Amino acid sequence: MTECQGDGAGGITPMELYHKLSEQGDNVRALKSDKAPKADVDAAVQLLLQLKLDYKLLTGNDYKQGSPPTEASVTQDNGPQEDGEDQVDPWNVTTSNAKGVDYDKLIVRFGSSKVDQELVDRIEKVSGQRAHRFLRRGIFFSHRDMHQVLDAYEKQKSFYLYTGRGPSSEALHMGHLIPFIFTKWLQDAFDIPLVIQLTDDEKYLWKDLSLEDCHRYAVENAKDIIACGFDVDKTFIFSDLDYMGASPDFYRNVVKIQKHVTFNQVKGIFGFTDSDCIGKISFPAIQAAPSFSNSFPQIFKGRKDVQCLIPCAIDQDPYFRMTRDVAPRIGYPKPALLHSTFFPALQGAQTKMSASDANSSIFLTDTPKQIKNKVNKHAFSGGRDTVEDHRKFGGNPDVDVSFMYLTFFLEDDEQLEKIRQDYTSGALLTGELKKILIETLQPMITAHQERRKQVTEETVRKFMTPRPLNFQY
Amino acid sequence: MTECQGDGAGGITPMELYHKLSEQGDNVRALKSDKAPKADVDAAVQLLLQLKLDYKLLTGNDYKQGSPPTEASVTQDNGPQEDGEDQVDPWNVTTSNAKGVDYDKLIVRFGSSKVDQELVDRIEKVSGQRAHRFLRRGIFFSHRDMHQVLDAYEKQKSFYLYTGRGPSSEALHMGHLIPFIFTKWLQDAFDIPLVIQLTDDEKYLWKDLSLEDCHRYAVENAKDIIACGFDVDKTFIFSDLDYMGASPDFYRNVVKIQKHVTFNQVKGIFGFTDSDCIGKISFPAIQAAPSFSNSFPQIFKGRKDVQCLIPCAIDQDPYFRMTRDVAPRIGYPKPALLHSTFFPALQGAQTKMSASDANSSIFLTDTPKQIKNKVNKHAFSGGRDTVEDHRKFGGNPDVDVSFMYLTFFLEDDEQLEKIRQDYTSGALLTGELKKILIETLQPMITAHQERRKQVTEETVRKFMTPRPLNFQY
Repeated sequence: MTECQGDGAGGITPMELYHKLSEQGDNVRALKSDKAPKADVDAAVQLLLQLKLDYKLLTGNDYKQGSPPTEASVTQDNGPQEDGEDQVDPWNVTTSNAKGVDYDKLIVRFGSSKVDQELVDRIEKVSGQRAHRFLRRGIFFSHRDMHQVLDAYEKQKSFYLYTGRGPSSEALHMGHLIPFIFTKWLQDAFDIPLVIQLTDDEKYLWKDLSLEDCHRYAVENAKDIIACGFDVDKTFIFSDLDYMGASPDFYRNVVKIQKHVTFNQVKGIFGFTDSDCIGKISFPAIQAAPSFSNSFPQIFKGRKDVQCLIPCAIDQDPYFRMTRDVAPRIGYPKPALLHSTFFPALQGAQTKMSASDANSSIFLTDTPKQIKNKVNKHAFSGGRDTVEDHRKFGGNPDVDVSFMYLTFFLEDDEQLEKIRQDYTSGALLTGELKKILIETLQPMITAHQERRKQVTEETVRKFMTPRPLNFQY
Repeated sequence: MTECQGDGAGGITPMELYHKLSEQGDNVRALKSDKAPKADVDAAVQLLLQLKLDYKLLTGNDYKQGSPPTEASVTQDNGPQEDGEDQVDPWNVTTSNAKGVDYDKLIVRFGSSKVDQELVDRIEKVSGQRAHRFLRRGIFFSHRDMHQVLDAYEKQKSFYLYTGRGPSSEALHMGHLIPFIFTKWLQDAFDIPLVIQLTDDEKYLWKDLSLEDCHRYAVENAKDIIACGFDVDKTFIFSDLDYMGASPDFYRNVVKIQKHVTFNQVKGIFGFTDSDCIGKISFPAIQAAPSFSNSFPQIFKGRKDVQCLIPCAIDQDPYFRMTRDVAPRIGYPKPALLHSTFFPALQGAQTKMSASDANSSIFLTDTPKQIKNKVNKHAFSGGRDTVEDHRKFGGNPDVDVSFMYLTFFLEDDEQLEKIRQDYTSGALLTGELKKILIETLQPMITAHQERRKQVTEETVRKFMTPRPLNFQY
């Protein structure tokens, strides 16, 4: 899965966006008058609608052809609306809002559905398990087709899980664990197969790394993933560089997907340009292929109708919107999705934690002392400047990174709520809040390091060997 | 290898070409002012130069910015220069000239070298074999780096052969045999390994066929190829759909190539557009990868420095121009090439033989009677309308398809020369010439059919299994 920073566009002025919109309007009209394939027209229209939404967010006005933005809206460039700048794609996540990305707006923009209390209750009922804290607290906040997955499961029609990671370095940070922690819970709750894709080919294509390094990172990252506690009898982890060359069925699905997606479509979805290499342009098919069960004949005995559920961060959704568009055209069920929010950087929720900035992240290799120092030194505080002010006016947990981290990792709902109240009232000081976080993270990371030490090369080899799992198909 | 008809552009007017040139000039300037990567600029400049050459051929004048073609040159559209219309790309081969494509012009346009008498003599000297009739008669007429291959061979540095076929149907025609007949001779003459790629993935991407059909055609076509007499101990035949999923090293090379070729480049080389599927756009890397010896670790023990020689029809050259451009950037030697002319359709040398038009082709499955009827009924004749005129003025072997076929298949140079003289003088009538051709083709095709019958499923399996060959590396 993609996480690299870089290629995406930066901030854009209303006038630039206006010109982009005019151009895209022309594109759509040209495609329609050329009687271009429906899928191409749809992709162009979708991009047009998204640009219109961006324009409205940026200028406060509806886009109108022939009416460029006025001076007033142009000057807004220096002071845009609170959430006008959210950028969420597989390579960039940024917002100007200290509370983080506006996830409700994202649901509207991406056309997904909110994980509401009704869905959380249903997951509890169908699985017979108390919902994971990531569900209870809105960290997995958005979904596609979860009700359909649960309907089928109730009728004894099972599904499988697919998630992944782009191995761009040896060092994983805590944010990387979120999808795996939740996927592990889903696997235990529903007792289903899991496939985990390590996109070492993608990292080679996007980054200045050798194939050998990308593959080595994949194997090293697999050890951290295994240390999350996955069951070797139910889980297959694969590197693209290995599995593509070990499974004709996987490649057949890649080619099928590649036949049904045009450059126009990936241009609209991912923003690729004519200067991008042909590897990047065709890569989305490789991230799409594990969504179809017959990519894993050793597990599903050639069956193509086992539905897939993909837990992932919301920035990966563009890949799976594309996948869901292709699926019915090649005779496969659409994968369902559960989307998570981003894990914020220590400096604040304006960006997600990034492995390429050591001070923004707590790594899985950090010592208890390093954790303590990073939290105390870098974790953005919602507290007041002085103890006196804090006692008097209280802190703001909504922008406090230490509190945000506790919502991810503190299991006890009541304790979390008490911390929130005490911090808001001023009864709990920033130093005390940070101490609670440090004492939550230290044993968690130490335990992870101990489990990782137990992961031998032999264990990794087992997880990464194509083989049947303990399920009958 | 590609042979499908269709996607290519049709005839173009001087004015259209003028606009295309203006546009491409703008592109080149934009790329330069944007400081685009050198490879992108080079590709755009190459396309510009080719368009300028096309313009000169079409209008007789040099292209000049700001000076659109005059009425005089525009009206030439209805009566272009004798060879102004040659179109040669992997999907189309057409010319208005009854003698066929002007191959000397093609050498200039593609920037390759002529196979001259000196090279033919050297091949004889280095191999210790009399040159194959395809070399003696200019059927393999163009090359890249053959002298370098021979220099190295003389210093005991061997090379390997790579050729292929796009399996778009079960039925092979005689034209399909040309590269294989010649490759077999090269293999015997130099005693070197041979890899043969069957691009079933490409046929799936370009044609309205299922993956299963394309793969089945690949296996059926392999039988005809094996029937050409290849040695199983020295030859590896592979379907892309199988081998991609059976060799991580092959996929690694595909990804390496895909990282070093941009959409701008394949747009310039192959004429892809934004409406093409991403499979087509990335496919050229798959046809390029067998040019590098470490795509076959089972044969070359991981060595990446064994040079490749590719015998193929000239229309495949765009793939290998791209390959030769990429090779030094990923640390591999450039493949050398030997290009053949096209095998003309029965109706004349304006087009090549096509499997999709039964009357244009003599198939390898045709009976002696079908061969006789097709030649008598369809083979375009360079003879005169009446026997009297023919005796008086003589025939024209340069446009006579029966005579052309004899240059491909009649081994005896003196006999061929005598037929040419007698036909030119009028001593030999069209019916008599056709009879000689029929009597040459019938036993040849019957023998092929008998050898093909001997090819068992087990033999095919052996040829198509990745394995070491009888060579030490």
